[in-house]
Amino acid sequence: MSLNIVLFEPEIPQNTGNVARTCAATGSDLYLVRPLGFSVSDKYLKRAGLDYWDLVNVYYYDSIYELIEEKGMENFYFVTTKGDKFYSENKYEDNSFFVFGKETAGLPDRIHEMYPDKRIKIPMIDNERARSLNLSNSVNIVLYEALRQLGFEGLV
Amino acid sequence: MSLNIVLFEPEIPQNTGNVARTCAATGSDLYLVRPLGFSVSDKYLKRAGLDYWDLVNVYYYDSIYELIEEKGMENFYFVTTKGDKFYSENKYEDNSFFVFGKETAGLPDRIHEMYPDKRIKIPMIDNERARSLNLSNSVNIVLYEALRQLGFEGLV
Repeated sequence: MSLNIVLFEPEIPQNTGNVARTCAATGSDLYLVRPLGFSVSDKYLKRAGLDYWDLVNVYYYDSIYELIEEKGMENFYFVTTKGDKFYSENKYEDNSFFVFGKETAGLPDRIHEMYPDKRIKIPMIDNERARSLNLSNSVNIVLYEALRQLGFEGLV
Repeated sequence: MSLNIVLFEPEIPQNTGNVARTCAATGSDLYLVRPLGFSVSDKYLKRAGLDYWDLVNVYYYDSIYELIEEKGMENFYFVTTKGDKFYSENKYEDNSFFVFGKETAGLPDRIHEMYPDKRIKIPMIDNERARSLNLSNSVNIVLYEALRQLGFEGLV
């Protein structure tokens, strides 16, 4: 079993480091779409992901559209507060790709326009000020729901 | 609906800040068991949790045992790599308490001895070096599973 996490233009190195750690712990692959807001040798990224970075398959892309075209959009899910459906309402298959937008600005408008039905959201309280989760936490919530659905195959 | 997160002697302020943010986003309460590895006015905690700290009910305790006695151990779950059961195998009730140990050392031996059957674990890959998740990520995985089981009541 293998799942895939895609971070679109991530800005904060600690977040990417913590996501890499989760990818290592779950055998998931990590796709980073440039530009990144940090160098992958950045000391903060290393601090958060140092012991884990070499345990993860990390792939770099310059275009999210190139990645989607290469892998096939049927496997993609876009995690966004603009999604209509809760992340837990979908049934996920092995090899799914979960895409997360940049910390400050989310996903580009074009993604929302092209794939409205592939958008999923994480339920939160109905209070605008409080409706916000750390990027790495959002990744973990969605990834572990997909792993749960797939029976945590290969995990102990 | 209300769930409760207990951090036992947390050491890293960004983790507690990110957990506070998740508590704000989900209407969960946060219990911090002293000693903490930082001041709650610490600049890192503020950076991670600044816009959210005032939206969370935060309670401070000097003893985990005092907290358990006060709330009733039947509502408690201890999240630890030493758990026998996956976190998703339990059925959670409203008002459950989820306890997470300190980043470097986990939960005290006495907790393991007193409540062996209340321990739950997050499945990970069978590779000792990779078997590790960030504290805040662990909180989010377990909390959102409980919220999912409870139908995300009150969340949108």
